Amino acid sequence: MAHRSGVSKSTVSRVINAEPGVRAEVAERVRGVIDQLGYVPNSAARQLVTRRNNAIAVVASQPQNRLFIDPFFDSHLRGIRKELVHHGAQPVLLFLEEPEEYPRVGDFLGGGHVDGALLFSLRADDPLPGMIERLGLPTVFGGRPLVREGERVRERVYVDADNRGGAREAVRHLVALGRRHIATITGPYDQEASAVDRLDGYRDVLLDDATPDLIERADYTRKGGADAMAALLDRRPDLDAVFVASDLMASGALQVLRERGRRVPEDVAVVGFDDLAPIAETTDPPLTTVHQDIEGMGRLMARLLFSRTGEPGEGRAAAVAEHPLSSVVTPTRLVLRASA
Amino acid sequence: MAHRSGVSKSTVSRVINAEPGVRAEVAERVRGVIDQLGYVPNSAARQLVTRRNNAIAVVASQPQNRLFIDPFFDSHLRGIRKELVHHGAQPVLLFLEEPEEYPRVGDFLGGGHVDGALLFSLRADDPLPGMIERLGLPTVFGGRPLVREGERVRERVYVDADNRGGAREAVRHLVALGRRHIATITGPYDQEASAVDRLDGYRDVLLDDATPDLIERADYTRKGGADAMAALLDRRPDLDAVFVASDLMASGALQVLRERGRRVPEDVAVVGFDDLAPIAETTDPPLTTVHQDIEGMGRLMARLLFSRTGEPGEGRAAAVAEHPLSSVVTPTRLVLRASA
Repeated sequence: MAHRSGVSKSTVSRVINAEPGVRAEVAERVRGVIDQLGYVPNSAARQLVTRRNNAIAVVASQPQNRLFIDPFFDSHLRGIRKELVHHGAQPVLLFLEEPEEYPRVGDFLGGGHVDGALLFSLRADDPLPGMIERLGLPTVFGGRPLVREGERVRERVYVDADNRGGAREAVRHLVALGRRHIATITGPYDQEASAVDRLDGYRDVLLDDATPDLIERADYTRKGGADAMAALLDRRPDLDAVFVASDLMASGALQVLRERGRRVPEDVAVVGFDDLAPIAETTDPPLTTVHQDIEGMGRLMARLLFSRTGEPGEGRAAAVAEHPLSSVVTPTRLVLRASA
Repeated sequence: MAHRSGVSKSTVSRVINAEPGVRAEVAERVRGVIDQLGYVPNSAARQLVTRRNNAIAVVASQPQNRLFIDPFFDSHLRGIRKELVHHGAQPVLLFLEEPEEYPRVGDFLGGGHVDGALLFSLRADDPLPGMIERLGLPTVFGGRPLVREGERVRERVYVDADNRGGAREAVRHLVALGRRHIATITGPYDQEASAVDRLDGYRDVLLDDATPDLIERADYTRKGGADAMAALLDRRPDLDAVFVASDLMASGALQVLRERGRRVPEDVAVVGFDDLAPIAETTDPPLTTVHQDIEGMGRLMARLLFSRTGEPGEGRAAAVAEHPLSSVVTPTRLVLRASA
């Protein structure tokens, strides 16, 4: 079209985007050619010039049913959407579950449709983070990514809660209650950093008292929590407290304690982690747990990403220069209810 | 770039896309200019020529928490994803909740990033369907869209279950059990076609026996079902059966019946609708309900859309000509468990 109208490409794009700096006569000529060609100034054309879509991908490489059932992702996504919409950017969700979905997601993310990505990828063996890094797409992680030993990667920017500090506070509370045999039900610590950190916090407080027979690994599901509680009770019938690394697992553990005739908190004190209201407030008894501001973490992820991509409407280079980027760890606090 | 290399635009695009029909010497010249300009053949440029992204939007204009909590959408999305991935297309999810999100979603959908849309828009007053129609994007609806009286719209293609037939079968079963005072708890029939159709099926069977005091409107939530059951029992303590228009509402109704000391099915027989396994199999007693193949409906939506957009890799015009497009209503069947 630049050829036909006899003006430069940048002039054409200024006319298409209604930017100033084009003489009225020239603008008229360009518009005439546009009409003649039946040219529609779609975003694909605009994008060649501005390289901006005002769209951000939210990518989750986890089983869909875990995402949908776990209120954790619901809260995270709520925070992300609020912040993106507030800044005029469209959140675009991509779920990955099966290996054959990866190349397609890579095509889409590399295809110039989005300005950046917010990534929920928690398994240490997930190829997704490396894939996105090779695409050069600005990315912020939800939760600290677990890096395999010896793996060399660029620094990954993330937003996470103070999992280790929160676990410490939970276990200190159980110690202060006079409990002597404090067990823990962990998340999948070979796969997720939050599980590693929460177990480390438990060990920080108990030191040599954290014997292996008091530690049972589970998978952040309700059923996993129930099975782990049963195993712990079989092995250590003398336990008088348990720190459970998620509310969902704690709800399963409480059910097993009830079935086995253990009173909570009289016989066994229970502390959870997350403070997901729909769970922690409705368990029997209501759950003492470690609160993290999940929706706030979602908003922070979006804000951190904008500090790399620039906000919609502002230049990218300027934004990157002004805001140096680093990960954020948000505080946690213990919320006392009836279970401990 | 066509200008600089002295060849036609279509020749440049053939070179970029590595298509045949360009003399080696010409291709070399084009590649030289590409190198000189530092030009990267990104998908935005390719898309100007092919207009294909191999990406399909899944758009849901419902509160996020309803989407996430309701297993209905989880199953639908599972079917859609399987079918899209099988055909090499990337599903891209867009949620709309607040009015201020509409223009942005419109920008994205109109921006050439996706080849078509699968739309879950169930409220009669939702501006989204009209917006997408104006964009000219091929669209298939999940569930028959309810059109307001007097509204003139193009024919909207949808996939739905036989809601009216399923409701008829449910109510006929209650009649065959000898029940005399059969109530119904409906969905929001001013807003959603499925609620209209399930109420019509109830009326088809009961005719003049479907008196207004046996009909209570609710909202497809568990709490709504519980409140409606309480209202019906207050008004018609003689009722001996209830057809509840969703499993989630039925689970709330069962709880109220238990609290009021009514035995199910001895005193009150209950039939639900949906056959969502996580609900219907775990209620007390397990729920007799109308089964619909939700995941299969999701797959069908994707297949119908491909018949308009063409499958990834094939031309769009050819596809549209070969497959005339019409809506599909899938069969339902009654599944007998303990509640009726």
